[in-house]
Amino acid sequence: MKKIPVGVLGATGTVGQRFVQLLADHPWFEVVAVTGSERTAGRPFREGVNWVIGGTIPTTIADLIVQPTEPTLEITGKPPVVFSALPTAEAREWEPKFAAAGYAVVTNASAYRMTPDVPLLIPEINPEHTGLIATQRANNNWQGFIVASPNCSTTSAILPMKVFQDTFGLEAALIVTMQALSGAGYPGVSSMDIIDNVVPYIGGEDTKLENEPKKMLGSFRDGAVQFADIRTSAQANRVPVIDGHLASVSVKLGRHVSAEEAIAALQSWQPPQICRELPTSPAELLVYRSESDRPQPRLDRDTGDGLAWTVGKVRECDVLDIRYMAITHNTLRGAASGSILNAELLVKQGFIGY
Amino acid sequence: MKKIPVGVLGATGTVGQRFVQLLADHPWFEVVAVTGSERTAGRPFREGVNWVIGGTIPTTIADLIVQPTEPTLEITGKPPVVFSALPTAEAREWEPKFAAAGYAVVTNASAYRMTPDVPLLIPEINPEHTGLIATQRANNNWQGFIVASPNCSTTSAILPMKVFQDTFGLEAALIVTMQALSGAGYPGVSSMDIIDNVVPYIGGEDTKLENEPKKMLGSFRDGAVQFADIRTSAQANRVPVIDGHLASVSVKLGRHVSAEEAIAALQSWQPPQICRELPTSPAELLVYRSESDRPQPRLDRDTGDGLAWTVGKVRECDVLDIRYMAITHNTLRGAASGSILNAELLVKQGFIGY
Amino acid sequence: MKKIPVGVLGATGTVGQRFVQLLADHPWFEVVAVTGSERTAGRPFREGVNWVIGGTIPTTIADLIVQPTEPTLEITGKPPVVFSALPTAEAREWEPKFAAAGYAVVTNASAYRMTPDVPLLIPEINPEHTGLIATQRANNNWQGFIVASPNCSTTSAILPMKVFQDTFGLEAALIVTMQALSGAGYPGVSSMDIIDNVVPYIGGEDTKLENEPKKMLGSFRDGAVQFADIRTSAQANRVPVIDGHLASVSVKLGRHVSAEEAIAALQSWQPPQICRELPTSPAELLVYRSESDRPQPRLDRDTGDGLAWTVGKVRECDVLDIRYMAITHNTLRGAASGSILNAELLVKQGFIGY
Amino acid sequence: MKKIPVGVLGATGTVGQRFVQLLADHPWFEVVAVTGSERTAGRPFREGVNWVIGGTIPTTIADLIVQPTEPTLEITGKPPVVFSALPTAEAREWEPKFAAAGYAVVTNASAYRMTPDVPLLIPEINPEHTGLIATQRANNNWQGFIVASPNCSTTSAILPMKVFQDTFGLEAALIVTMQALSGAGYPGVSSMDIIDNVVPYIGGEDTKLENEPKKMLGSFRDGAVQFADIRTSAQANRVPVIDGHLASVSVKLGRHVSAEEAIAALQSWQPPQICRELPTSPAELLVYRSESDRPQPRLDRDTGDGLAWTVGKVRECDVLDIRYMAITHNTLRGAASGSILNAELLVKQGFIGY
Repeated sequence: MKKIPVGVLGATGTVGQRFVQLLADHPWFEVVAVTGSERTAGRPFREGVNWVIGGTIPTTIADLIVQPTEPTLEITGKPPVVFSALPTAEAREWEPKFAAAGYAVVTNASAYRMTPDVPLLIPEINPEHTGLIATQRANNNWQGFIVASPNCSTTSAILPMKVFQDTFGLEAALIVTMQALSGAGYPGVSSMDIIDNVVPYIGGEDTKLENEPKKMLGSFRDGAVQFADIRTSAQANRVPVIDGHLASVSVKLGRHVSAEEAIAALQSWQPPQICRELPTSPAELLVYRSESDRPQPRLDRDTGDGLAWTVGKVRECDVLDIRYMAITHNTLRGAASGSILNAELLVKQGFIGY
Repeated sequence: MKKIPVGVLGATGTVGQRFVQLLADHPWFEVVAVTGSERTAGRPFREGVNWVIGGTIPTTIADLIVQPTEPTLEITGKPPVVFSALPTAEAREWEPKFAAAGYAVVTNASAYRMTPDVPLLIPEINPEHTGLIATQRANNNWQGFIVASPNCSTTSAILPMKVFQDTFGLEAALIVTMQALSGAGYPGVSSMDIIDNVVPYIGGEDTKLENEPKKMLGSFRDGAVQFADIRTSAQANRVPVIDGHLASVSVKLGRHVSAEEAIAALQSWQPPQICRELPTSPAELLVYRSESDRPQPRLDRDTGDGLAWTVGKVRECDVLDIRYMAITHNTLRGAASGSILNAELLVKQGFIGY
Repeated sequence: MKKIPVGVLGATGTVGQRFVQLLADHPWFEVVAVTGSERTAGRPFREGVNWVIGGTIPTTIADLIVQPTEPTLEITGKPPVVFSALPTAEAREWEPKFAAAGYAVVTNASAYRMTPDVPLLIPEINPEHTGLIATQRANNNWQGFIVASPNCSTTSAILPMKVFQDTFGLEAALIVTMQALSGAGYPGVSSMDIIDNVVPYIGGEDTKLENEPKKMLGSFRDGAVQFADIRTSAQANRVPVIDGHLASVSVKLGRHVSAEEAIAALQSWQPPQICRELPTSPAELLVYRSESDRPQPRLDRDTGDGLAWTVGKVRECDVLDIRYMAITHNTLRGAASGSILNAELLVKQGFIGY
Repeated sequence: MKKIPVGVLGATGTVGQRFVQLLADHPWFEVVAVTGSERTAGRPFREGVNWVIGGTIPTTIADLIVQPTEPTLEITGKPPVVFSALPTAEAREWEPKFAAAGYAVVTNASAYRMTPDVPLLIPEINPEHTGLIATQRANNNWQGFIVASPNCSTTSAILPMKVFQDTFGLEAALIVTMQALSGAGYPGVSSMDIIDNVVPYIGGEDTKLENEPKKMLGSFRDGAVQFADIRTSAQANRVPVIDGHLASVSVKLGRHVSAEEAIAALQSWQPPQICRELPTSPAELLVYRSESDRPQPRLDRDTGDGLAWTVGKVRECDVLDIRYMAITHNTLRGAASGSILNAELLVKQGFIGY
């Protein structure tokens, strides 16, 4: 099978490296272009990158010449596809330029997540939100488009929220996260700040955790997403864990439900049928653990190759209705792998092809 | 000044060691008796104890002969006073026997915390609950009595709850804790379970966090404590931190208040006047930190010699009314030092003397 | 291909679990019997085991009935093969009884490592030491035999010692290890002892590190192993690392060599040809890293599926001759996988078959 | 008693902050001037500093105006005294200019440690090396002078080396360190590099560990220090510990000695008499621990207010002669407190006064 050629914007950073690593053996995509800063542009990728994510640089990509981040990349495909691992400020500047130049921009950056006509997408949650692409193209007169992944902490918390919304209705969610260090990139958090400690602050994270679910759980109608009417409140904490964001969530539902009903809803959940056709999607997407001491970051983050949600501690909450804990791997499901799944969905939905 | 002689029950365990250490230079109390298990009874304390809490065994106590935990200790005083660091099962058996035999039992154990006529006491929160002592004596026909400290996680969360209850009314509290390893004693948590990890389970802790505040924030009337009408929900987590329990709390108040009002209430709080007369009480009991990344366990646990509450992250909560984070040192304010403060209060209130 | 049936002694412990996990998909071996303590005997393995090593219980083994650890296991094969993950005291009692009853005992236990006629075996180091089996059988009048793996810390340090011995001669080795927590089993090291700390003591480990290399690097002649004439000195330390034992070693060689010569010796080393025929053996057995900050436990422990040695920091030592650092995965190469490789060697050498 | 006024160069960095904190209540010294970079110069210290070392900014210093690092500070005293916490490059540029301008520069920086006429000083080790000051002044035609502290890792290892040198003669030392994160400053080591890991590299540290002891253990004769004839070899490792550098050292002595002799030498060691007159010096300078699992960073780093050496694990080494482990607190004895002790010695020796 012929593969779809793709580019990676900001390929030399830590998220970019993860894209390069995960795409190296992808059954549908093939990296043909990588971009980087002025410092690295013009050099072979293996020389321009400070590879910090473990493993080795994929040989198929090591010798690609790093190009400047400009929408002049030669990528065939209809439209040409780029994954964006750009820092926020650069994403804000360049992603629209790529979309205007006809590229499909599948981004992990936060710059346009809350823009009304940009899908904030997880295939298992809101695949129909890609309907915004037509609106986005019309609004901007673009041939290309932008599709965004949510923040990695939002990702951890949201699947049970979706299940409960569909089953019982969802009115409010109170979220406390315990987030891994890799979420801050490299060098990220100083060891002096986090050994024998917890830091109750991650810049901008509380707001993202409060806003993104309202959009993602909203309904797509008449070319627009109407935000879900959910009250939210969030406290993000950094803990001395390498990978895996753990969320403790209490929800107010449309009616009071027992723990058994909530668990049954989680266990009987089936992803949208189209998710079954995405090659990266794991066999089991939502793993419910009944043990009283699960989920745990180190034991559960790699479930389903880092693409599954592990959920547990589901019980009644005397203040709201139900509480639960959920974990996903923040640099896989919560970042690069999540964007790759988004691109796979776009292929199946016909937005990306050759 | 002549000191009040006291005993320490279960003095060879980790909590007992902390009592011994803290009482070694106490201005009002003097340890004259220590008890231990059959294995250690009859030997000098320095030989019977496996001293694990750092520092060295106080010389004034090292040569005391460990006695069996039976209410035959020769302690003068009216009544004779014992601090109890007994494990739960032993506390359940022996504390009533000591009370029946005329001893004042100031306990850190959980066995009788929720017994209606036992004060669950923090001097800064509910000093008037010692009024239960008369009821307890009458109910049991005891000369002595039992006074209990709350669980160390309850202690971290409760002071702002009290302030808000007094100022605005308190209807509900949703609590997520990130608790230190020392709370599990020694050897306690396996390193294999907690390095690069968080464990969302501490046996019985959620229930304690949900129940104890209702009693402590209740009102003392007609010889009894009427529980506060507060809905509570708690999730206790173990994190790789040595000391210091951090609580993330959202509260529903009697009316909606702004963050500024909540902060002002905390900053203007004054402890009951009698707390000012307790020698162990720190100058500043409630330290409000305005930085966005405080409180933190490693930086704030030792504030006020481990007896102060540090509170921060006070902001409006769109689900309930106000959220905040608070920390105390779990083995000091949350355990041994807290019980010693209770004893100091009992002295000032006239329940203990010579 | 028909598989060789094997048993696992002490299968419910942590090392036993690792054997079970690694043997579940082994191309040559098939677990047909598992033994456990009185508490677990008679129950299905999945019920008798407290599975703590991550992943899930292999389905092919979950329903095996745990048997008592006695040499009455029905295992076909010539001789019948058992892997021993017994604790030291039980290994001391039972391994000779199995050997006497005709079983081939491939053990990870320390009980008989230093017994003169028991091979202390790593296929890449001293495959010819299996010549001791004949001596052992003759000495004891056994049909079966015992073959032992070295201590996991010895394993980390020894491969470069072997290379240097063969190339330059080896006179002395001074070893300081930084060892992972999993080496202590579960629950093993208390978190209170190791967070923000290093413990310079592992019971018996210094002696093992000093003695085992002398045997393993000894020469097999006339049915016996003559110990190598090497002076050794070791200091084992426990560090807050989950997996991977790191060794810092300085060696006195037969002549002074430059760092370049030492590196060249390592890079040109080839394992004994027979190692190439062992199915578990990784393609690259000795990975030399030239970076100044490698090897590191977290980055290098999983190299070669946890079966490779990673070596670096090779430079001249002004006190002895050459210093280096080496790491292996302590529960894989250093324990269960190492014993499985030993069994594979025994198959190729004709000591095990059907 | 009138205090000696001092300045702190580079007072806003982490080492500078520690100087400021430790000098705030010093019985002999009083901080009257602080310098900082262009960014902070001209502002009050409390505004220019990002205080990261815990505790609070001393009120006596908070309002000092940060001055540029130039030898125009108004400090009375004969000579005027400055403590230098400058980064290496700035120390290299400015410390000679201050010395030339008549200041006594007591530095923690590495720039001039190995300069032949600069004392590399620990009062307990080589107080007579201040004899170099006369040489230094003559060589440079300076009124002032520079006195340096050794690297924090050297400090941990060296006291037993000195004791053994004096008692038995010292021929060689092989050193492996496990060093704390605070030694790298702030933000220093990335948490992503060190959680669940050890890094066998600290830039330049091996060389410092190999060279500095030769100078410090050298003999002062005829206005010069003749380096000790000791062969050294070092491997510095970073471990996930906040404070406290642990050194594992094997030494070749003038003759073979038993562990008992070595321990007796350590236990009977007395510091030079003049050390007893330094106000910061702890009562017990060398704490010998006989337990098999000591010294440990978390338990022993604060001994003697962070100024004592804790030594243990003394035993015979079959490769050299004796091995031991030693620890000191790297930011106290190994940095700021060490330099303050040096200044106290200079007062007693008459090099500093008013």
